[in-house]
Amino acid sequence: MALDASVKTSPDFPIPETMKAWVLGDPDQLTLTEKPVPSPKRAEVLVRIDAVAICATDLEIIHNGPPAMIQGGAPFNKNFTPGHEYMGTVVALGEGVDEYTIGDRVTVEIHAGCGQCKRCRQGMYTSCHNYGLNYGDRNKGHRANGFTTDGGFAEYAVNNINTLVHVPDDMSDEEATLVVTAGTAMYGLTELGGLVAGESVVVTGPGPIGLLGVAVAKALGAQPVILTGTRDNRLEMGKKLGADHTINVRNENAVERVREIMGGKGVDYVVECSGASNAVNEAAQMVNRGGRICLAAFPHEAVPVDVAYLVRNNIYVYGIRGEGKSATHRAAAFMEQKRFDATLIHTHTFPMGDLETALKYARERIEDAIKVVVKNDHAVSQRAEAAE
Amino acid sequence: MALDASVKTSPDFPIPETMKAWVLGDPDQLTLTEKPVPSPKRAEVLVRIDAVAICATDLEIIHNGPPAMIQGGAPFNKNFTPGHEYMGTVVALGEGVDEYTIGDRVTVEIHAGCGQCKRCRQGMYTSCHNYGLNYGDRNKGHRANGFTTDGGFAEYAVNNINTLVHVPDDMSDEEATLVVTAGTAMYGLTELGGLVAGESVVVTGPGPIGLLGVAVAKALGAQPVILTGTRDNRLEMGKKLGADHTINVRNENAVERVREIMGGKGVDYVVECSGASNAVNEAAQMVNRGGRICLAAFPHEAVPVDVAYLVRNNIYVYGIRGEGKSATHRAAAFMEQKRFDATLIHTHTFPMGDLETALKYARERIEDAIKVVVKNDHAVSQRAEAAE
Amino acid sequence: MALDASVKTSPDFPIPETMKAWVLGDPDQLTLTEKPVPSPKRAEVLVRIDAVAICATDLEIIHNGPPAMIQGGAPFNKNFTPGHEYMGTVVALGEGVDEYTIGDRVTVEIHAGCGQCKRCRQGMYTSCHNYGLNYGDRNKGHRANGFTTDGGFAEYAVNNINTLVHVPDDMSDEEATLVVTAGTAMYGLTELGGLVAGESVVVTGPGPIGLLGVAVAKALGAQPVILTGTRDNRLEMGKKLGADHTINVRNENAVERVREIMGGKGVDYVVECSGASNAVNEAAQMVNRGGRICLAAFPHEAVPVDVAYLVRNNIYVYGIRGEGKSATHRAAAFMEQKRFDATLIHTHTFPMGDLETALKYARERIEDAIKVVVKNDHAVSQRAEAAE
Amino acid sequence: MALDASVKTSPDFPIPETMKAWVLGDPDQLTLTEKPVPSPKRAEVLVRIDAVAICATDLEIIHNGPPAMIQGGAPFNKNFTPGHEYMGTVVALGEGVDEYTIGDRVTVEIHAGCGQCKRCRQGMYTSCHNYGLNYGDRNKGHRANGFTTDGGFAEYAVNNINTLVHVPDDMSDEEATLVVTAGTAMYGLTELGGLVAGESVVVTGPGPIGLLGVAVAKALGAQPVILTGTRDNRLEMGKKLGADHTINVRNENAVERVREIMGGKGVDYVVECSGASNAVNEAAQMVNRGGRICLAAFPHEAVPVDVAYLVRNNIYVYGIRGEGKSATHRAAAFMEQKRFDATLIHTHTFPMGDLETALKYARERIEDAIKVVVKNDHAVSQRAEAAE
Repeated sequence: MALDASVKTSPDFPIPETMKAWVLGDPDQLTLTEKPVPSPKRAEVLVRIDAVAICATDLEIIHNGPPAMIQGGAPFNKNFTPGHEYMGTVVALGEGVDEYTIGDRVTVEIHAGCGQCKRCRQGMYTSCHNYGLNYGDRNKGHRANGFTTDGGFAEYAVNNINTLVHVPDDMSDEEATLVVTAGTAMYGLTELGGLVAGESVVVTGPGPIGLLGVAVAKALGAQPVILTGTRDNRLEMGKKLGADHTINVRNENAVERVREIMGGKGVDYVVECSGASNAVNEAAQMVNRGGRICLAAFPHEAVPVDVAYLVRNNIYVYGIRGEGKSATHRAAAFMEQKRFDATLIHTHTFPMGDLETALKYARERIEDAIKVVVKNDHAVSQRAEAAE
Repeated sequence: MALDASVKTSPDFPIPETMKAWVLGDPDQLTLTEKPVPSPKRAEVLVRIDAVAICATDLEIIHNGPPAMIQGGAPFNKNFTPGHEYMGTVVALGEGVDEYTIGDRVTVEIHAGCGQCKRCRQGMYTSCHNYGLNYGDRNKGHRANGFTTDGGFAEYAVNNINTLVHVPDDMSDEEATLVVTAGTAMYGLTELGGLVAGESVVVTGPGPIGLLGVAVAKALGAQPVILTGTRDNRLEMGKKLGADHTINVRNENAVERVREIMGGKGVDYVVECSGASNAVNEAAQMVNRGGRICLAAFPHEAVPVDVAYLVRNNIYVYGIRGEGKSATHRAAAFMEQKRFDATLIHTHTFPMGDLETALKYARERIEDAIKVVVKNDHAVSQRAEAAE
Repeated sequence: MALDASVKTSPDFPIPETMKAWVLGDPDQLTLTEKPVPSPKRAEVLVRIDAVAICATDLEIIHNGPPAMIQGGAPFNKNFTPGHEYMGTVVALGEGVDEYTIGDRVTVEIHAGCGQCKRCRQGMYTSCHNYGLNYGDRNKGHRANGFTTDGGFAEYAVNNINTLVHVPDDMSDEEATLVVTAGTAMYGLTELGGLVAGESVVVTGPGPIGLLGVAVAKALGAQPVILTGTRDNRLEMGKKLGADHTINVRNENAVERVREIMGGKGVDYVVECSGASNAVNEAAQMVNRGGRICLAAFPHEAVPVDVAYLVRNNIYVYGIRGEGKSATHRAAAFMEQKRFDATLIHTHTFPMGDLETALKYARERIEDAIKVVVKNDHAVSQRAEAAE
Repeated sequence: MALDASVKTSPDFPIPETMKAWVLGDPDQLTLTEKPVPSPKRAEVLVRIDAVAICATDLEIIHNGPPAMIQGGAPFNKNFTPGHEYMGTVVALGEGVDEYTIGDRVTVEIHAGCGQCKRCRQGMYTSCHNYGLNYGDRNKGHRANGFTTDGGFAEYAVNNINTLVHVPDDMSDEEATLVVTAGTAMYGLTELGGLVAGESVVVTGPGPIGLLGVAVAKALGAQPVILTGTRDNRLEMGKKLGADHTINVRNENAVERVREIMGGKGVDYVVECSGASNAVNEAAQMVNRGGRICLAAFPHEAVPVDVAYLVRNNIYVYGIRGEGKSATHRAAAFMEQKRFDATLIHTHTFPMGDLETALKYARERIEDAIKVVVKNDHAVSQRAEAAE
């Protein structure tokens, strides 16, 4: 497919007709194939993908399919390209776009709401009531690249401009892929009810969202920030990102230790990033009356929850999914201002052609991998030039 | 211009190629002319206009032009059709529309935000940063029908589905045109900080927004609701719509009377609908510490304001413009539930062909006109049939 | 104990030195005894109790003790007087009280926060961090009459003025006891994120809070309001209070029926008042993406919850306990304005001396009892006079 | 007056019966006199005052009296002690206080609300409806030390615990006096609607609140932060505190320059700290549609305001007075975390005995004085010891 006539391009960034893209066959089967370069429509741009970070959800999508389906079914053997934490360069502009120019470096958030449903009208576009409807007769323009529309394990992707965030010159490609992770933590913390400087936070689980959750909480002025986990090296990394206290739950009772740190009372917020089966109950024991629990992770099966305790203590529980409410912009602002060093959690880089190795590192945490990034060849050579 | 190929129509509602429409020539000059029927695009519908209420702002637009301009200039002699408080029947569907079906009766709110700017992403679409940009290269899709895009003094208009509200069968065309007025009052009251049942409200100025402001405040459970004005018959109408107290400012000092009613203290909210030059200062004297003033009207020139008083008393002042935040939907729900009788403020009806007479009645308040409505012939006959 | 010297009294309401009061011995053992009339301190009044409604929580407190303890232990054999849904007459004023005068009829909400902790400073006094501390050295002035401080099954009680709501002349004693129940529903609905007119609500469980939840939701303009339950007569009562649809879960699958009513989508809010073990999961299936679940009831044991579903659908879960944020004032305003007839749920009245019979009716739902009220003799005779 | 019997003291901090205190005679006449040491009541402590910063409002109070009066009249010749930006050491505890212990270093915010009025119940204690009522029969316990109750130009003062903030060991007395100034800026910025990282701010007027407004905005992640003023050295200081851009309004048109920096659009927030007569109108021209203006300063006379512009552009105007909503706690957290160096604005220190010289420096801006601090002798010697 060629680009639509209304699309603006530049001779600096010639667009080929086809591109290399990984597509999902049967579960866990990815094939590098050749696809047409997609064409951006109104309010969309074409992004040349430079770097993509791998998220645990990518592994899940490749194995099980995404939470919400494409065209009403699992994405297997449908020519679907996963990958959602990417950054790149704007190379073509759809109709009416003047917010970005060709050549701009951008990173992405996932959700482009339909703009028409009740939630989108409220600004809650991650809860779009037309989630996944980007096809055929009921095309509402919703996009969740790498979930319900083609994502970033490719050379090019189409993005609604609402999903773009500018990347400053002095931020590396790799760091830029982490903006959406920090944005998810930011959404959780500020959606939790407006974390304000001086409030107390526990983050449970030092995965990527948890670690950047620590960093974002600290940048927001939280005090203290407490991180719980099972691996000392991860907890150590949490300290570097701003944790005032860390608790290794193999050695200590986390609930008791939190209450001790807080002088007998709980904290104002818990950001649950472990997905452990008793995590909600423990989080409830960690917050004070009227406190809030943000669920950024979850177990796959139903788990016993002490609902009575939540009610008796006026505890608010939020399930968040993704980044929402322009939180990526706020996270990007903090990162641009060097409030924390997100690159601490970036551990490995592979060429896009080695995606399978990269996924294996991420899945099996080889060499204690946290964030594994894949880069397209053009990006590798371009940044090398830029560095000269 | 014929309809785009992607537009869905129905044999029940054949769409002509051209339509009758009033267009604005020089200031205050309207001519009934023949225009192509416009074609709805993605997320838009074609509305056959049945009835249009005349708003004071229409008179201003026809005389001075709208606050924000079309294509960077005044709308005179540009084939522009004013009129923004209209209702009608959906007769054609643009791409991707399944929220409405052909034959649905609808009424409208004014603003369709671009969906892409900071304010639209927050759900504040009436503060769209691309206000007025619906033309040429910088087409952002913003619409404000009757302000910056063609409006309702015609047979047909294109509306973004975000501007539509369903009209129940048992609501007359005339009443349906008042939903947006009630919606503006609703926006002012709920946006003012969440008026809650049992709070106290003063409405200054018994024009259409003021009178429906009284009705909406009462429906929300406000107590007391106090209306100020200069004409006893209008104040009487305010009582019918829910005012607990009325104050004729010709006979009484409104500030003193409000404080007397409130036992020495002020009210929680003032909705200023008079546009009087001392209105902000008087409103400030009427609210209690921490109270809120909603400006739904305003004088055209700068006026002296006692800023020190506002600061010392922690008073919040909101300038609102139009209806916003889906407030029309809330107002429509109240009207559907018969919480108040908005038709009390509808005083006159004329055929669309007599628009100039209708405008004259509205402008000069002939026979104490409040809301003057114009109807297209098809609507007159259709509703007559429906009533049989 | 005599009244403090600073307390103001009136010859119209002579205060005896002692009063009759029910006190809790062993679990489920109440004895009518003689106690000193308590003396109101700063910002407190003495209320002569006229009528008290029985709440399911009273039965629990009498059987198990309250959620938060008095002086660090269960309230058994400690001379504790339960009863929290009462109304009466102000008969003495503590220091600095001019908000109420002797002779005022008042009804009560439960919680008087300490005014000093983080939550009280935020206005979240029902989440007071000094809950239960009204004794000895750590006296923070927190009161929860009938929970942690003496309640209403007596002739007199001391109330912080923050717990009082004026009762209009034309509201009966019995109706006034229901203000706090409506206030709890109001708190749930408005705290849930600001229910606005035109939004959709399911109430699960037609007990007192559920039934008044239906009434309050409708008064707020909710549309539709759907009530689920197991008994047809209760559902019928729900219809009278404003339910647009009722679902008998013995005959229908409530989740399916809700989705059918809503055209395939869920509702905006669920107020869970059943305490059923699968209630949270069913509520989650009933709300739409981004919707909210208010837990006003809860099972006593931990129950399996599909946390993943909550997270994936951005669902917010609030545990509420009691009335909070001045919601009783808002509920009282609606009741004063006759927006719904709360007395529909009042089924039985007994003299205070027959409290045990009254509790039995409430506990065993004899004659389908919903709200059972006990009245003091003085109140019975006084209102009889008033009616003459 | 001796301390009440219920007050707890410590031998480490013996409390004398009388103290030295400055009292206000005729306007601008202060006399150092001997007064009884006041006794803290329930929820109050006695603070030994160590250091006090001078605020422009002190100069006004001493000259004109405070905005709200003591006992219904001006505070002249009433033995009133002004001074409100102070810090010190807790030396005695009123009944029920366990949040602080004797020896704790604390700094203060001004307002202790009554805890009973509508605004206090909402957490808006700076808008207390019982402002100034701390005397005689209508004693509501409201305090605004240095405004309506005795303040800090003395050796001791009584403070409600709600007005206290802990001071960390490594923060100097002088820096601690600035917490309330930063807290006022914080209140303005976060109350403005939740300034979030990445949003844009203009601060007009580089006085103490303006300069710390820049610092707080930057700490919150604002981007860019623009400061306007007339003196280059003040603007330079603003840069050190985090301003990305400064505008000397003597050399440039501030509105045009702001719009230029913002690429033609306005900023999200303006914090007006200049009190200039055209400041509101200029601020309106500086914010974008839907933007917010916080008034932290104001002209004394009514000034012409273009109300129409505010309404047409959906601009929100907040008058703030003081610090509110626990903002001092958030500001203190940022200062404890060394997010900015508030001491940059501290220019002079004098002994308490030289208060008149200190006031003269502040009033006449001698040696470009910004924040002038006075210290009691005990504090000077004590901190010298601590430093050894």
